Amino acid sequence: MSEFSNDFQADLLRLMRRRRDVRRFRTDPVDETLLRECLATFSLAPSVGLSEPWRIVRVQSEAARAAALANFEAANAAALDGYEGEKSCLYSSLKLSGMREAPVHLAVFCDETTPKGAGLGAQTMPEARRYSVAGAIAHVWLAARARGLGLGWVSILDPERLAQDLDIPQDWRLVAYLCLGWPETESDTPELELAGWERRLQDVPVETR
Amino acid sequence: MSEFSNDFQADLLRLMRRRRDVRRFRTDPVDETLLRECLATFSLAPSVGLSEPWRIVRVQSEAARAAALANFEAANAAALDGYEGEKSCLYSSLKLSGMREAPVHLAVFCDETTPKGAGLGAQTMPEARRYSVAGAIAHVWLAARARGLGLGWVSILDPERLAQDLDIPQDWRLVAYLCLGWPETESDTPELELAGWERRLQDVPVETR
Repeated sequence: MSEFSNDFQADLLRLMRRRRDVRRFRTDPVDETLLRECLATFSLAPSVGLSEPWRIVRVQSEAARAAALANFEAANAAALDGYEGEKSCLYSSLKLSGMREAPVHLAVFCDETTPKGAGLGAQTMPEARRYSVAGAIAHVWLAARARGLGLGWVSILDPERLAQDLDIPQDWRLVAYLCLGWPETESDTPELELAGWERRLQDVPVETR
Repeated sequence: MSEFSNDFQADLLRLMRRRRDVRRFRTDPVDETLLRECLATFSLAPSVGLSEPWRIVRVQSEAARAAALANFEAANAAALDGYEGEKSCLYSSLKLSGMREAPVHLAVFCDETTPKGAGLGAQTMPEARRYSVAGAIAHVWLAARARGLGLGWVSILDPERLAQDLDIPQDWRLVAYLCLGWPETESDTPELELAGWERRLQDVPVETR
């Protein structure tokens, strides 16, 4: 029934298992051609109404990276304040971003007012555009991982402050801040599971109506 | 540098190109084991704080499917009213969902208040949970496509009405309504492009800060 081999399908699952959120990166650079190949998969992702609303900003200057890092550190300190006792100790021991080490930083936005696609599919659920961006990031993530690269998604940020600091157009909304680079180690187990923060469910419950 | 072969990487890109939004399905059923294999990839997807906030509802009864279809048809008629002239003619000629034919319907929600993950990564950007669900759908989509199945994402719906009609818990928010089944035809070109609605960009622009 499928034009893709069983071997390919098995490898695809292996890739998905290997695709962990990486926070521990080596600092050596990522080849620009390799990076472009990964980013090109944005174009292969589905988007509502073919709106392709992803907007990618590479955060490269010292000032921009320092602003993003300070943003994360403030948000992370505030988040820590929300935990008590053992959970607080555990939280403070977690490494939750690879922003200091990762050679490539990408802030990914959704253009909320793009004329592309003429609004098709986004009248009752305009958030579908942001979901298209999130889905496209999954494509880039898998493509990067297949090439041996690691990616980490940082959401512990004040998105409005980041947009201000990076001088982002008014109508773009932050979806993700991505760190990309060569991972220090490989693992099939999420770091939060290794650290004892949370465990994965063993299955996917499906309700019926 | 990578443990995945060049052949695999080439096939992965081919899969991403093949992964089109499908609205034209055959009506024959999807084997339940195959469906479970596809849905199992939800568990392989990353999620903020390991919160696994996806909640999957299979829309199967005649009443539930009729309610969803009526919901789509009302939202689609309202959307049509927003276009004029040529664009209106073109919009009315588009087939924007395979809900009548697709054997499997899945409404996918995000549990906005799940205790799982203890809120990690979702303090300043609670929407990160919804983005985790959208990214997980990309995994399921690719896994389904690799098996020859087609998937279509319907966002032309009133999400609150759907949640009401399906008796969904208060704290679950609709992310996607998915149609799944065997596609009538295969294509690497999005239907909206074939129909002349919109064209894909040739590249992915990256700005630098």
